[in-house]
Amino acid sequence: MKPNVYDPNCPTRTVLDRIGDKWTTLVVLVLLDGPRRFSQLRDGIGGVAPKVLTETLRRLERDGILTRTAYPEIPPRVEYQLTPLGRSLEEPIRAIATWAEHNVPQITRARKAYDRRAA
Amino acid sequence: MKPNVYDPNCPTRTVLDRIGDKWTTLVVLVLLDGPRRFSQLRDGIGGVAPKVLTETLRRLERDGILTRTAYPEIPPRVEYQLTPLGRSLEEPIRAIATWAEHNVPQITRARKAYDRRAA
Repeated sequence: MKPNVYDPNCPTRTVLDRIGDKWTTLVVLVLLDGPRRFSQLRDGIGGVAPKVLTETLRRLERDGILTRTAYPEIPPRVEYQLTPLGRSLEEPIRAIATWAEHNVPQITRARKAYDRRAA
Repeated sequence: MKPNVYDPNCPTRTVLDRIGDKWTTLVVLVLLDGPRRFSQLRDGIGGVAPKVLTETLRRLERDGILTRTAYPEIPPRVEYQLTPLGRSLEEPIRAIATWAEHNVPQITRARKAYDRRAA
């Protein structure tokens, strides 16, 4: 079967659903700098609810994008780290983040113009 | 102010929220081939609810990513077309879609292995 992102039954689409998600983008961006604990991820990504972060990390672990390692210490230490597959997301994810940063002024202007027309 | 995707109050983040969305990715991919009517978009993107497609198109119009043109014909014809800003999304969005298509087998295997461990 040829991969086809337009087909909701194609596995490619479920992968796009996952990586086309802002929390995934932000988690991967933080982990590109190295392994992080849950609290470091939570503090590094402003505005993420702990429950949402937990779910995002579990999905990314299931997808083989990151590993979760629990160190038998007291207090217990758990670290999240990108796999080679996860690191291969660097280029497309940085491209999206860079596009967003470059084009914010233009989009902000477009939104204001649209809202004036709609008002 | 320096753009900072990690800050929930930075406009960059609201832009990332928008383009980090699978429906946006799929709409832009279809429109890269040329202008389309609503029904063509709906049929081209499997599994999208009309209401969701309408909301996605309105948000992308507000962001200046696409234009909506109503032609005064009978029956009325409405076409959606990427702006130059929208076309500039081609590279990052194709990078994400290509990554998804390339890595589906690996992710599918990772999911099966994870589910076996969890069972």
